[in-house]
Amino acid sequence: MRAGQGPRSLPREAPPDPQLSLNTARLYVITPDREPGQVVDLARAVLRGGADVLQLRHKTLPRGKLLELARSLRELTSAAQVLFIVNDHVDIALIAGADGVHLGPDDLSIESARRLAPAGFLIGASASTPAVAVAAVSGGADYIGCGATFSTPLKPNKEVIGPEGVAAVSAAVRVPVFAIGGIDESNLLQLKAIGLHRACVIRAIADAPNPAQATRRLRAMLNE
Amino acid sequence: MRAGQGPRSLPREAPPDPQLSLNTARLYVITPDREPGQVVDLARAVLRGGADVLQLRHKTLPRGKLLELARSLRELTSAAQVLFIVNDHVDIALIAGADGVHLGPDDLSIESARRLAPAGFLIGASASTPAVAVAAVSGGADYIGCGATFSTPLKPNKEVIGPEGVAAVSAAVRVPVFAIGGIDESNLLQLKAIGLHRACVIRAIADAPNPAQATRRLRAMLNE
Repeated sequence: MRAGQGPRSLPREAPPDPQLSLNTARLYVITPDREPGQVVDLARAVLRGGADVLQLRHKTLPRGKLLELARSLRELTSAAQVLFIVNDHVDIALIAGADGVHLGPDDLSIESARRLAPAGFLIGASASTPAVAVAAVSGGADYIGCGATFSTPLKPNKEVIGPEGVAAVSAAVRVPVFAIGGIDESNLLQLKAIGLHRACVIRAIADAPNPAQATRRLRAMLNE
Repeated sequence: MRAGQGPRSLPREAPPDPQLSLNTARLYVITPDREPGQVVDLARAVLRGGADVLQLRHKTLPRGKLLELARSLRELTSAAQVLFIVNDHVDIALIAGADGVHLGPDDLSIESARRLAPAGFLIGASASTPAVAVAAVSGGADYIGCGATFSTPLKPNKEVIGPEGVAAVSAAVRVPVFAIGGIDESNLLQLKAIGLHRACVIRAIADAPNPAQATRRLRAMLNE
């Protein structure tokens, strides 16, 4: 805990208006399941490259280590004024002072998570159809992660809905919709071609020889 | 969410004074990693048998299912006025209205968990030495789970400290200390013989042909 904070106060949010930052966000980067030190290095590169949102997703780290990592990433993203989201764990997101949490289909419901979260805390949901997206937004989702846009080795059993499927979800809700799944420089223009300009990536950056440069290029392509 | 509750209100705690119930608790039962329906059936038997504390521990269930199960167990334990603790997940414990959370060595720190928890919310810690136990209590632990008392197939690499090791921890702190690890009817009297009368069990009840009866017998032995 930092000096001068009471036992129940949570770290200050950064950026100052998460909802506003979310509305203008284009490139959303999710961290891979690697050693904490490697994740931190990657996060630095991603922030240098100009990502708009950083999500900590880690499926194998014990919860104590996950909180430590979340705190490190919150520090980096605060300094860069970049949105920071934690996957799955509402408690860790809140304790680390993240801007929000992303809840997948196997996670807590949005309504459940809202019971612990302060006003303004962002909650993201996953949806691959307009009906699911509309239900999530009615339940309080602030944004949607929508896919799989293309096939991806990370989720081989996930149905591929294509850029058209993402566009259909995007048209059905008013909150930001981020295309996810197999997106990289080779196919990003297929999204742009049908008017989509928000994307989530993992591999396209984590596996790039120069992650900062890859981030910069993807961000520029989304902005064009 | 139940009718009549606001979006930020949490379910009412039961029993009414968790701290008082903890102080008089003797038999603490932890659930095994089984299907939710089986865990609920086992919990019913354990409550019929007179356990003082029920802990939901499940290492493989997705978090959405874990919350559902926690809510079911909270309902049963509330009706029975028995303490209900959730392992690891502070958010799920809070949303389900549990009386507390148990934090193992790989979990969030007690200080971190306290930042989310309301006053009176119980936090348990694991310790196998007086020094670790004293530190945990200084950090705010309300009780200690102490072991491994005997060898157990559930944690084969855990060092066995024996009833004497538990007694040493128990003498070092003022909070309740529950002996854990390989305890069953065959060795419980070894604890009693050196003045220990609090025990945590999993297998001794979960694997018993009649879990309610096994609970009743263990509870009676601790009370003698």
